[in-house]
Order: sequence, then structure tokens, then C-alpha cells
Amino acid sequence: MTSRTGILLLVSGPSGSGKTTLCRRLADEKEAHYSISCTTRPAREGEIDGKDYHFLSKEDFSTRIEAGKLLEHAEVHGNYYGTLKSEVLNHLAVGTDVVMDIDVQGAAQVRDCPDEKIKIALIDLFVMPPSEGELLARLTGRGTDAEEIIALRMKNALEEMQHWPKYSYRLLSATREEDYLNFKSLILAERLRVSRIL
Amino acid sequence: MTSRTGILLLVSGPSGSGKTTLCRRLADEKEAHYSISCTTRPAREGEIDGKDYHFLSKEDFSTRIEAGKLLEHAEVHGNYYGTLKSEVLNHLAVGTDVVMDIDVQGAAQVRDCPDEKIKIALIDLFVMPPSEGELLARLTGRGTDAEEIIALRMKNALEEMQHWPKYSYRLLSATREEDYLNFKSLILAERLRVSRIL
Repeated sequence: MTSRTGILLLVSGPSGSGKTTLCRRLADEKEAHYSISCTTRPAREGEIDGKDYHFLSKEDFSTRIEAGKLLEHAEVHGNYYGTLKSEVLNHLAVGTDVVMDIDVQGAAQVRDCPDEKIKIALIDLFVMPPSEGELLARLTGRGTDAEEIIALRMKNALEEMQHWPKYSYRLLSATREEDYLNFKSLILAERLRVSRIL
Repeated sequence: MTSRTGILLLVSGPSGSGKTTLCRRLADEKEAHYSISCTTRPAREGEIDGKDYHFLSKEDFSTRIEAGKLLEHAEVHGNYYGTLKSEVLNHLAVGTDVVMDIDVQGAAQVRDCPDEKIKIALIDLFVMPPSEGELLARLTGRGTDAEEIIALRMKNALEEMQHWPKYSYRLLSATREEDYLNFKSLILAERLRVSRIL
């Protein structure tokens, strides 16, 4: 076994691209740690602290932002969401790879992080749905949602898709197995990278 | 299908590392074109022009060197060996990936090539034997060679192995299937790279 530092794989893409399924499978197969976000919104029925989210009070979250402990964060509808640096760095330091399911704004913040340990670890991927038709089918779901809701989801997805050229890698979704093979190859290939060998 | 330019994968490593087996399998599985060298040495029994080598006269080879048509070349025991730029660029232009089984001196020449089409295409891998003990076993082969011959092979291999830090990727050979999975992942991952998407 070669001793090396971990990889931080950022994965973005619109709802319906299948990115979350890919990230979860990588974690389920023990290939990477799935980075858990923290939030100030209250836990919902069935959500477990430390598994679904790290649930923090607003005071605690604010203190951590001021102390520079957040790798990325955003305020949405009056609640904070973000990723603690410790959630990522502790794993990277012992050579565990970390996968982050993250939106384009969050990914931009991680890319801008000046910490050398993050810079060395980082690779980023944008997952695209196979086509607009297939995206619409996926966003329509069970067909119980109002037309305006679906139209809004579609608009948001198409807007988010404009950001793919900012990423180093882009996966055009095809079949589930083919997508996962290509997705996993990113981690397998990066494990051979000389610059991370200790 | 995304339209993209091809990848040029350089593969180096000492005799006994298994690099040639990896390159041939990638080509056999139609994942990449195996780059064919040209040489001025006479064809041996059974060698086919255009398959094993492009066999050239010394005059022809010299003319091509002077015209800047060689991507890399060397003189060994009075004969020229090298790779024609056309052998690589024609494939890259149509999006075919190319794999080159090449020594460390040749790889250094390809890396120094100022052609932007080569620079964009290039990734390089050094394949290492699992251990010195296993390397010795592989170089000893059928045990019919003189001890001095084996010692010389071992010395050359150990010298060549010093060059791995110049490469972007390093593969520590383990089992045949594991090696191929990791090797192939390099090509699969690189196919997702945004900078090569047209």
C-alpha cells in the first residue's frame, strides 16, 4: 500500500442528473466518505444528527463562520447550510477519500479555499442529464405536481447546467451502470496521482 | 456522444513491470490505438511492416528528423527508433485515444514537445513492479540466463525506476486484473475531462 493524502471529489449537477445516487453508491461501497453538511434548520421527522446533517444552533453556526471553520456555507430562507472544514480535512489527512454532493455556489467556494490541503485534494465533476427530454421526464416524477412547479424545476435545472464549463470533469448521464463505472474511474485514477503520494 | 479530442497516454516502466501487457490489452479491447514506432533496423523473421514497426531507411528517417516529423527518437547501436508525429496526431484529431509504450527518455521528449495538440492530449503513467523480489523473479524468467545478464537487467530496471516522480500517475503493480482496472480507469476518467470537449 502506498501512503497518500485523500481526494476531495466535488459533485454538482441539477436535480434529475442522478448525482446523488452516484455519490451515495460510492459511499455505500466504502470507496469514499460522504461529506455530511451542517444546518441550522430543525431536524425533520426521522432525520438523525450526524448522519443526515450535523444540526447546529444559529449561534454555534455563526461562531464557526467567524472562526473560519466553514469550508463553504449559504443562507437559504433564513437558515444556514454548510460544510465544516473538519468534516473534510480529518478524513483527507488519513488518506480517506471524501465525496461532496454540492451545488454550484458551494463548489465555487470550495475551489476558492486557500487551504493547500484542500487544493491538493480537490477534483470536481458536473453531472449532466442525458437530454432535456429525459430531464423533464425525471423532474415530472409521478406526475402529481402542478405544471408551474415542474416548469420552475426545469428552469432552475437548465440554469444550473450553464455552469459545467467551470468544472474539470463532466459526465453525460447514460445508463446507471455505465455512469457509475465512469464516476468510479475518477476516484480510481486519482488514487494513482503522483502529487498525492507521501 | 460528446465530441472531443483524443488522449495520448504515455506508459513507462522497467522490464518486468507489466506495462506492455497493459498497453496491448487496452488496444485489443479497442479502447485506444497502440502507437507503432518506426525504426531503421532490419525487420526480423515474422515482423510485419506497419504492425510491429514502420520500417524506414536511414536516409528516410534522417530526412524526417530534419523536417521535424518525429515526436521522439533515439539512436541505439547505430539504428534509429522513434515515433512519427503523424502516427499520433492523426488519431487524436478524430477523437481516438492513443497509448504509447515508451522509455523514460522518449517520454521526456514527448513531454517537451511544444505542439499544443500534444500538450492537451498528454497524460503519463509509470508502472512499478510490486517489489524488488517480484521484479527479480520476473526478470529471471525461465532461469536459463546467465547470472550476469540477470544482474544487468535488474540494475537497469532499478535505475529506470528512479524516474517515477516525473510522471503524473504511478501504478504499483498488484494482480493482473486489478492493474488493468486501474489502468483503464485512467482513460475512462480522462474521457470526462472538460478541457478536451469540443
